[in-house]
Amino acid sequence: MNLSADDIARLEPRYRATLINSLTGVRPAVLIGTRSHAGENNLAIFNSLVHLGADPALNGLLFRPATVERNTLNNILETGAYTINFVRAASYKSAHQTSAKYPKGESEFEAAGFAEHFIEDFHAPFVADAVIRLAMKFHSKIDIAANGTILVIGSVQQIYIPDEIVSPDGFVAPDQQELLTCAGLDAYFKPVRIGRLAYARPGVLPAEI
Amino acid sequence: MNLSADDIARLEPRYRATLINSLTGVRPAVLIGTRSHAGENNLAIFNSLVHLGADPALNGLLFRPATVERNTLNNILETGAYTINFVRAASYKSAHQTSAKYPKGESEFEAAGFAEHFIEDFHAPFVADAVIRLAMKFHSKIDIAANGTILVIGSVQQIYIPDEIVSPDGFVAPDQQELLTCAGLDAYFKPVRIGRLAYARPGVLPAEI
Repeated sequence: MNLSADDIARLEPRYRATLINSLTGVRPAVLIGTRSHAGENNLAIFNSLVHLGADPALNGLLFRPATVERNTLNNILETGAYTINFVRAASYKSAHQTSAKYPKGESEFEAAGFAEHFIEDFHAPFVADAVIRLAMKFHSKIDIAANGTILVIGSVQQIYIPDEIVSPDGFVAPDQQELLTCAGLDAYFKPVRIGRLAYARPGVLPAEI
Repeated sequence: MNLSADDIARLEPRYRATLINSLTGVRPAVLIGTRSHAGENNLAIFNSLVHLGADPALNGLLFRPATVERNTLNNILETGAYTINFVRAASYKSAHQTSAKYPKGESEFEAAGFAEHFIEDFHAPFVADAVIRLAMKFHSKIDIAANGTILVIGSVQQIYIPDEIVSPDGFVAPDQQELLTCAGLDAYFKPVRIGRLAYARPGVLPAEI
C-alpha cells in the first residue's frame, strides 16, 4: 500500500486515525494517576510517554486537546503532581477500561478495578499493584503549534521499582515482568527480548552483553 | 529499589543514563535516513519517535544535542527531507551498528549492511528492505528549554507499507513482521500480541476485537 500526503488527507477519518497512530509502532502503555484539589482521583492510560533526559531525570507526555485525557491534564496543572504506573501485560483489559469516558466524580481506579495507593504526603494516587511507579512533578508545558497538542514535561521525584528487574548497570528489563505495551489505541503487546548489545564502534561487529 | 530525586542526582552518570532511559520502557527502534546537500548519506537508529497527530499526519523525533545524531539533524534542517524506516527485529545487530560514530563521509548504510533505496525524486535514502518506509518533510522544530533537547516535527509525505500488515480498519500490526523495538540504548525486543480491545465504555467489560 502506497499512500501520498493527499491520499492520507482523503482517508475516512477513523481509518486515518487508526492507521497513522498505529504506524508509530509499539510503545509503553502507562497509567497516569492524578487527584484534583477537590479530592477526585483520576486514572488514565497513555501511550505517549517519552524520555527527555537523565540529568535531570525528565520525561514528557503528549496530550491531545479536548479529549477524555483533559481531566488528567487539568489535575496536573492544578496540583503539579502525577504518577506514572507501569503495569503487567496481563492487566491490559483493566488498563484499557480507564480510557472510557466516566462521568466527573467517578474514579477510573474503582471502575477499572485498580486499587489506589498513596505514599507519604505525595498528592497523586499510585496504582497499588503496578510494577514500576514514578512520582512526578510538573516542570513545564509546551504548546505545539503544529496541531495543538501539548507536551507536558515532568521531573522524576521518586522511583519505586523491584530490585530484580534492574541489572547491575542500571538497565530496567521491561520483559521480566512483562510490562504492558500497545500500538494505536486498542492493541496490546508484551515485549520479548531479542538481545542486548555492547556499545557500537566502527568496524566491530556488535557483541551480545 | 526506591530512589528520590536527590538519590537520582547522585547516581554514577552512566548508571543513571541507563536507568532513566530504560525506565521509559519499550519503544520502536527506527532508522532515520538522510542525505546532505553534498550527497553524503546517513543512517541512524532512534528510539524517540512519537505520534503527534493523524490529520495532518505528523510525528516527532527527539534529538539530544552534541551527539552522533547531529549529522541526522543537520541533514534534516539542511534539506527538509528524511525517511523513517521500520525494520524487522532480526536486523537488530545491523540497526544497532548504525549508532557507531563513523567518520564523516562514511555511510552507515554500507557500514551496517543496509542497502540504500531511492524513490523517484525524494532526496533522502530509504532502507531497501525495511518493512515500513515513510518519506518525511520537515515541518518545524521546538527547542525544549528544560534540557536542551530538540523536537523535530515532520509531516508524512508518503507511506510504503505491505498490504498484509494493515487490517481492514487501518490498524498496522507491528507483530506480523516482528518490527524492531528497543528499551534504553542497547536492548532489543519483538512485540508479541496480547489482544485488541473494543472502544472502552463505562460499565461494559472490554471485548476482544
